[in-house]
Amino acid sequence: VPGRLAVADLGSNSFRLVVFTDHGDWWKRTDEIYEPVRIGEGLTASGRLGEEPMRRALATTDVFAHFCRATGLGPEDIRALATSAIRDAANGAEFVRLARRHSGLDVQVLSPDEEARYGYLAAVNSTTLADGAVLDLGGGSLQLVRLDGRLATESGSWPLGSVRMTERFLPGSGPAKPKALKELRGHVKEVLASVRWLRKSGRRLVGIGGTVRNLAQAADAAAGFDVAGVQGAPVTREALEELIERLAALPAAERSAIAGIKPARADIILAGACVIAAVLDAGGFDALEATEAGLREGVFFEHYLADADPPLFEDVRRASVLNLAAQYRFEPAHTEHVAKLALGMFDELAEAGLHEGDPIERELLWASCMLHDVGMAVDYDDHHKHGRYLILNAGLPGFAPSEVALIAQATRYHRKGMPSPGPLAPLLASEEDQRRLDRCAVLLRLGEDLERSRDQLVRSTHVELQNGSVDLRLDAPGDGVAVPRWAAARETELFARAFGRTLTVSEGPS
Amino acid sequence: VPGRLAVADLGSNSFRLVVFTDHGDWWKRTDEIYEPVRIGEGLTASGRLGEEPMRRALATTDVFAHFCRATGLGPEDIRALATSAIRDAANGAEFVRLARRHSGLDVQVLSPDEEARYGYLAAVNSTTLADGAVLDLGGGSLQLVRLDGRLATESGSWPLGSVRMTERFLPGSGPAKPKALKELRGHVKEVLASVRWLRKSGRRLVGIGGTVRNLAQAADAAAGFDVAGVQGAPVTREALEELIERLAALPAAERSAIAGIKPARADIILAGACVIAAVLDAGGFDALEATEAGLREGVFFEHYLADADPPLFEDVRRASVLNLAAQYRFEPAHTEHVAKLALGMFDELAEAGLHEGDPIERELLWASCMLHDVGMAVDYDDHHKHGRYLILNAGLPGFAPSEVALIAQATRYHRKGMPSPGPLAPLLASEEDQRRLDRCAVLLRLGEDLERSRDQLVRSTHVELQNGSVDLRLDAPGDGVAVPRWAAARETELFARAFGRTLTVSEGPS
Repeated sequence: VPGRLAVADLGSNSFRLVVFTDHGDWWKRTDEIYEPVRIGEGLTASGRLGEEPMRRALATTDVFAHFCRATGLGPEDIRALATSAIRDAANGAEFVRLARRHSGLDVQVLSPDEEARYGYLAAVNSTTLADGAVLDLGGGSLQLVRLDGRLATESGSWPLGSVRMTERFLPGSGPAKPKALKELRGHVKEVLASVRWLRKSGRRLVGIGGTVRNLAQAADAAAGFDVAGVQGAPVTREALEELIERLAALPAAERSAIAGIKPARADIILAGACVIAAVLDAGGFDALEATEAGLREGVFFEHYLADADPPLFEDVRRASVLNLAAQYRFEPAHTEHVAKLALGMFDELAEAGLHEGDPIERELLWASCMLHDVGMAVDYDDHHKHGRYLILNAGLPGFAPSEVALIAQATRYHRKGMPSPGPLAPLLASEEDQRRLDRCAVLLRLGEDLERSRDQLVRSTHVELQNGSVDLRLDAPGDGVAVPRWAAARETELFARAFGRTLTVSEGPS
Repeated sequence: VPGRLAVADLGSNSFRLVVFTDHGDWWKRTDEIYEPVRIGEGLTASGRLGEEPMRRALATTDVFAHFCRATGLGPEDIRALATSAIRDAANGAEFVRLARRHSGLDVQVLSPDEEARYGYLAAVNSTTLADGAVLDLGGGSLQLVRLDGRLATESGSWPLGSVRMTERFLPGSGPAKPKALKELRGHVKEVLASVRWLRKSGRRLVGIGGTVRNLAQAADAAAGFDVAGVQGAPVTREALEELIERLAALPAAERSAIAGIKPARADIILAGACVIAAVLDAGGFDALEATEAGLREGVFFEHYLADADPPLFEDVRRASVLNLAAQYRFEPAHTEHVAKLALGMFDELAEAGLHEGDPIERELLWASCMLHDVGMAVDYDDHHKHGRYLILNAGLPGFAPSEVALIAQATRYHRKGMPSPGPLAPLLASEEDQRRLDRCAVLLRLGEDLERSRDQLVRSTHVELQNGSVDLRLDAPGDGVAVPRWAAARETELFARAFGRTLTVSEGPS
């Protein structure tokens, strides 16, 4: 039986219960309840949780507790965590008491340091960030963490959350006044001026939280990159300033007219965008990189990676690919052998001078080999297309969107047809993308062809350069090369396009 | 370990090896090798299998045999079946001998009756056809079977296959001459004139084979219905005549310019279309209904349904839904309880006079309840959209495309949002479709809301009509109604649109 962990994230803007299921060698989110509670509403003015927000919050914790009990989650499987609004309100402790009495939910109020740490664990385990900073913008507070060599070395928390900043600086419902925006940004700048380490952090800034996700979605939509999810999506300083300009020109209620902006965030997104812009300025960052992981994933990773100290994946990209592959677990011996054969050819062809042997390209080839058959879970027919769909929709944290697109598109072309960027063209627009796709697709296809009978009969290959052509020699026992030769012979056209050589396939050692 | 059955279909136009995997309570196709061998090439003129076609055919059976051995399929798991071309050629037996000697594949030559029977089993187990006829058009021959009450009562086979008819009547590569088309149709008419029972068969004609699938795809494309697959797609007499006209106007090699027509069939599709048109005429049928199942599925069904005599699913539609649901097997107790609650409300609301209680609509509601969570196999996020994708792509034999679209779209809207036909608009164009979608979606959602905690806590519901409103009373032990009430309260807007009443949810018996 897989283990489960429920994390209730009682934030200033929304409450969210997420259930993670842990299968040992893979995990996924399996349930979620979301309520836009806005417990922090009015907090800026009064310093207290209001009566109406408190009532909404207690009704929601009640629902969470019922849900957990009913789905068989015991107290030891639940982490209910309160952040800024409840932490800072004069009557926050009263809410915690009432929630416990009403629903039996044992709410833990996170300290700023604890909150920052979970954000750090979320970011470092869902991106390749090693040196740089993590920004976690909630409704109540902003957390910043500095990373050196993947370790958190500094952190801080400030009451600069998007609900708070909206209430203080942009309370009206009309378009935002330039003066108000300037004051907001000035305030953030002033608060962060004392954070010396921010400017000394590495070049990369990873952002978490709903505001970040929503801004990344809007930036993607504006750039035509709107494929699936915002994991790893960059928001450049220019894209952010442009969004701020467009958002400010609209009345608060109409801001969701901008593609990507959610109606439930329309009123607070502008203040959030200004806070982020001020952080980019203060730290000298050129862009923000979104991750879909957040506090909840940070809590889960602490549990899932409990054997490591600190709880970090050794290699986030590798872990993402293996997590998705394990979830579908389609004939692992076959899949791994396809990868072995394809990478062998990749290395030999690089050695022969037919391509550069870029290690990143090699990793993308490996990933597409490991995932090429996941679409079988949908249907045999068109499983190459289903595979692309599954990869794009499940996502691969740690890979940039253009890298995920390449893996997905190589999978799409792992059986037949001449590879093209297709619907992923916005992410694979350069000539080099096309050439990389050709190389990955044809090597994956050759690996698959040689493994067409799925029994690892072709143990290895040896590439031999002859004048103008590449002879691929197959090492296989007995008469085992009939199917592989037949299958591989189909790739001559694509091989010629990818490597500029004629491909022949022959038997035995050279 | 699931059982496997490999069926090698050695047809006149193409050879195909398909592997079926049998998990006991569900099955699916798991592998396929296709080669457009054209063993029947030149057969019309010489009466013999040509040297070159024979060579291609033996190379392909060799590949099939290697593949089977390598994937661990023993002789008892393989059925290699030859049809018209090999059966009718003077040297067909020589091919069978050579194939056995070369590759060890034990090729069985089907008699016309056996071939017709497998076509019948494929059609009757993948459609709701009870009284009517089945048309199976291959490259070499045409089989027709009459059905009365789902049983085959008459059958015949004629050498009217699309490769043969092309060679005899439309051998040129240019546009087809009206005279040649007329002669072809006249020939088919003459041959079928003696088939008295054809005109006495029921109104429905189900078609199988690559030509049928390809024509259905082209007809779908022309009508803008091109969603996924052609299972159950109708090709009306008018649509067929229009396609014939368009195909005839083009040179053979350019016929794949018509959307839906495959390049590998461009040269033989026109003759095939004319044969089918002549069958529609001869039998007085208004349309042809495509099924994606064929000879290979017929052979598999004989094995899979061996306990029944004849081997028929009791209820094809039910079997399709359960097969897909079992494949993803997402919390069966939850899924079935959602269906029970939703159908209970459907029945009570019909009794109260709020809708007509159409039994077909009830079945579609049941299907969408059973399948609403299959998308969880992709990812929790957007699993409603993933569910639609899986349903459309896996298909539901026995349901019309517009019914599959409704099930898929109800699944799409099982969580939130106001239902609309979305990308399936061409298939759900009428106002009644929208109303049916609203009703199915809101009852599925209410079922899901009441089962939000997945523990069957709400045992049943009771609908009570009050002036202008519907009170939904929940029967659940203890304080078990908090989550269900909270969840169901979200559906008031959609409920009002679907049933024209205000919805309230309350506790306990009335």
